[in-house]
This record gives sequence, C-alpha cells and structure tokens, in this order.
Amino acid sequence: MSLLVVGSVALDTVETPFGSVKDALGGSAVYISVAAGYFTTPIRLVAVVGGDFPQEHIKFMESRQIDLDGLQSVESGKTFRWGGKYHYDLNVRDTLFTDLNVFKDFDPKIPPGFKSSTYVCLGNIDPLLQLRVLNQINKPRLVVGDTMNYWIETKPNELMKTMKFMDVIIVNDSEARLLTHEPNLIKAAKKIIKMGPRIIIIKKGEHGAMLVTEDTIFSAPAFPLETIFDPTGAGDSFAGGFIGWIARTDDLSTENLKRAVVYGSTLASFCVEKFSIDSLRDLSYLKIRDRFHSFMDLSRFDEK
Amino acid sequence: MSLLVVGSVALDTVETPFGSVKDALGGSAVYISVAAGYFTTPIRLVAVVGGDFPQEHIKFMESRQIDLDGLQSVESGKTFRWGGKYHYDLNVRDTLFTDLNVFKDFDPKIPPGFKSSTYVCLGNIDPLLQLRVLNQINKPRLVVGDTMNYWIETKPNELMKTMKFMDVIIVNDSEARLLTHEPNLIKAAKKIIKMGPRIIIIKKGEHGAMLVTEDTIFSAPAFPLETIFDPTGAGDSFAGGFIGWIARTDDLSTENLKRAVVYGSTLASFCVEKFSIDSLRDLSYLKIRDRFHSFMDLSRFDEK
Repeated sequence: MSLLVVGSVALDTVETPFGSVKDALGGSAVYISVAAGYFTTPIRLVAVVGGDFPQEHIKFMESRQIDLDGLQSVESGKTFRWGGKYHYDLNVRDTLFTDLNVFKDFDPKIPPGFKSSTYVCLGNIDPLLQLRVLNQINKPRLVVGDTMNYWIETKPNELMKTMKFMDVIIVNDSEARLLTHEPNLIKAAKKIIKMGPRIIIIKKGEHGAMLVTEDTIFSAPAFPLETIFDPTGAGDSFAGGFIGWIARTDDLSTENLKRAVVYGSTLASFCVEKFSIDSLRDLSYLKIRDRFHSFMDLSRFDEK
Repeated sequence: MSLLVVGSVALDTVETPFGSVKDALGGSAVYISVAAGYFTTPIRLVAVVGGDFPQEHIKFMESRQIDLDGLQSVESGKTFRWGGKYHYDLNVRDTLFTDLNVFKDFDPKIPPGFKSSTYVCLGNIDPLLQLRVLNQINKPRLVVGDTMNYWIETKPNELMKTMKFMDVIIVNDSEARLLTHEPNLIKAAKKIIKMGPRIIIIKKGEHGAMLVTEDTIFSAPAFPLETIFDPTGAGDSFAGGFIGWIARTDDLSTENLKRAVVYGSTLASFCVEKFSIDSLRDLSYLKIRDRFHSFMDLSRFDEK
C-alpha cells in the first residue's frame, strides 16, 4: 500500500564516544522512508533541501524506490543541519547546533499524485505543518504522527489541534509525561487517548516500547545490544518500521499492531548499530525477519 | 522443596503521596518468606528482632506456615527500624532514618534442622553475614542472593567473595551499573557472570526485569499498574516469588527460570498495590496464576 512521509531531510553532524560523522544523511523523513521501504512501496516523500544537498543522497533515496516528487529544492538556500553529541552512556544527548536554513520556511506541498495515499506518517515537524499536510490530502486509512518536547512546550495548542487527526501517536516516555503532566505511563497513555489518537506508542529506549489502546496494553522489549554506536534516527526508524509493516499488511487488527511495534523496534535496533543511516543501507527483509524472531525468543515464556 | 531465607525483619515507617504507615511489618526476610510461601513449604526464616516486636506479626508469619525456629529475639533490644519517604513519581525515595538496633549485632545462626535446605535465599544484608550463613549449611541446590548499592560501595571485597557462592544474583539496574562500571546492562550482566553467579537478574522497576545467563537473555515486562501505593518491599517480593516458584517446581531449566522471573514480577506487582506487606496477606495461588496469565497477554505477539 502507498505511504506518504512528511518530515525533515537533514545533514547531521554527530559525535559519540566511538567516533564522529559530519554532514551525514539524516532527518526524520529520510529515516522513516528508508526504514519503511523494506516493507512497502510506493513511499512518497515530502520535504525540503537546499542547493547544497549532495546528489549522492538523492541517488541513494531513489535507489531505495522512494518517490521524490515532493522533495522541494531551494537552490539558493542551504539544507537543514543538526549537530549533536552523545555521552558515554548514550542516554544523554547535547544538541550542539540547529541550523534550520531552508527548513525554516518549509511549506509542505503535496503533489497531486500523492494526495490519495493509503497510509500517512508525519515526522517530527511543527504541528501546524503537520496539519497543513492533512488539509491537502484525501482521508488516508491511518495517520501516524510523531512529535517532540520542543513542540509540546512551544506549540501546545497547535499540537492539540493536530493530534485530533492522528490515529497513532508515537512519543517517548519523557514526552508522554510532559504532554500529560502524569508520571505513570499507563495513565499518561490513557490521557493521550482522550486528546485524539486511539493508538498510543510510548518508546522507552533501552527499555523497549509500549502500545496502549482503549482496551489493550502491549509491552515490547528492546533488543539487547551490547554496542550502540549512534542513537540518532532510532525513533524515526521505529516509526518507519511500524508504519511500513502496517502498509505492507494493510491490517489494523490489534494483533497486527503488536507485530508492527516489534518491527518498529527491530528497525530501531538496526539503526543504532552504525553511524547515521548506514546500517539501514544494506538490510534485507530476511535480516529483518530474523531479528523479529529474535525479539520473539527474547520475550517468550510459557506455562509449566 | 524447603527454602531457607536469611535477611532482616523490620518495622517500617513509610510516607508516600497517598498516605503513610508507622512501624509496619517489613524487612527483606519477611517479604521474601511471605511471597515464597504462596508457592512452597517449608519456609525457614533466620533473622533477629527486639523485645518490642509485636506478637501479632509473629502470629501472622506463623499463620503463613513460616518456620520461625531461626528467628532470634533479643529481649533487651529494639527491632530494626527503617523510615523512608517516596515522592510523587515514586521512583525517588529518601531514607529518613535507619535504626539498626538489634540488627547491628546480628549473627545469623542456622538451626540444625535448617542446615539441609534445598534452596537458599540471602536477603539484602552485609555480604559477610551472607557468607557466614553459607559456611553453616550443607550445599543447597541453588543459592539466590540480593545486595544493594550500600554494600557495593562499602564492602566491595567482601561482596566479591560472597558472590562466588551465589548461583543467582538479583540486582536493580543502577546496582548492576555500579557493580561493573558499565552503563550497558547486557555488558554489565556479562561482567557479573564473571564474578561468580551464573544467573543474573536485573530488576528495572516500571520497565520490568531481565534474566541473563551465559547463553540466554530474557526480557520480562512490568505489570502496567495505574496506581502504585507503596514500592517498599517490591524487590524482596520479586526475590520471594522467583525462588518460591523454583522451589515449588524444583526445575532449573532455562524455560523454568523465565517463568520464575515472571512469578517474581507478579509478586512485586501485587506488593506495590497496598501499603507495607498488606497486599501479600490475602493473595491466593489462583490470583497469582491469573496475573501470571496477564503477563503473558501483555508481552505475547505472533507471526502473521
């Protein structure tokens, strides 16, 4: 089934205790699209880049069968750049710089051929822009939205309005608490359901992820990795794996949502094993299935 | 199968945002014994109390079929008292006071009838005392030990010596990191295996628990509770549920260890639902089985 992805395309400069990269391909729309591309086609990307955006990244995305008709290029401008530094325990991240550049005036335009997409994934951008996307398209089967503490704090009203049109929201644990002023994650998820989305996914980093609906709670483990090179993009890869699986199977049953959460966790676990998007470059559906099975082994127990 | 439990018997004074209790029955040996008592018999407790220890608590423990032959009573002394305060998010705890009283001079004496116990659970006490227990008994089938940051910091050498005789160690995530200076929990667990115990259980509070052996990693979810009244004793209840199930089934296979971790999580989840040990007073094996099944539902997913 078709999937529309709207978000950022960025050049990331990242330092970790294990090394660093400069101007590496990044951005929420890229991670989501590449991750989802292992499951479904067509993937339709809407984002903006500057005239400095390297042709090799365009070629890579095209090679992944990503439809770039909605990728605006502002020739006179520079691509969005983000710089961050991770510390030894990798749970703490300092943002070193955020140069919005052409992203500052980004106004998502949905090409006519993209307007009837079956599934939509709104990467972590200004909730006003997310809403503007939804206003341009025909009603999709499912809208997945991501957000972050910055928007919760600076644009709470706009976010509340946009959330009413999301079927699924993906947040991390601290964002869930910030959004609801509720420390207990189950209570927080139930409060978020009252804000609009009927499916809440709370990512908990090394502790896995949780799916909460009106009548279900599902707890997925994190993959037990001994070496995490670069956590950048893990959340977006999760979103891509999740919606990719849903779009592939076109099945919105609770049991299939659970599988989608595990596929999200699977893509996130691959993502952090190398720098930038590198580990998502040479995956295969077979490798992904193998790790899905490892997730099963990791959490399965039976009765005596 | 028989289970020997050594640890503290205490009178706890606890404040939480939901209320408070004064001089309530507590202590690691009590929580472990009461929790394990739902699974197996006999439970043999070794600990110390002062002359002020209320007779009603003795009666309660006797009613739970706990053999108190090893409970020393120092008539001239006062029972160990601990006071703590939990804050709104219940993850942060301040110790208000620790009056060791008779526990200060506690020298565990194992009664002759207790020396050949099939299973042994060493509650969180001075590692030197844990070792002194092991020196008095015949080799049991399995030794489970608990410890805490205080012993890791103040008696690291003694702890290292004692750990060599433990088959299973139960720690929480921060203790695992402190013990190994390793932020990654999988690496930390593998380092602990080199210290002696072949089975490592890392408790992660609201994020569940993890079982690590040389060739297995198992991740158990936490039970999604919306109301946690009092976290006191949750870790000890976990240990009691874990070893209780093992002693009941007398099965040390990996699959059964996984079940034991879930039974530990089950008992911990009951523990925190009321103040002090109250919720462990009126459980039944049937209620425990029901919640074990809920844990299954919570984490189970299948292939398409």
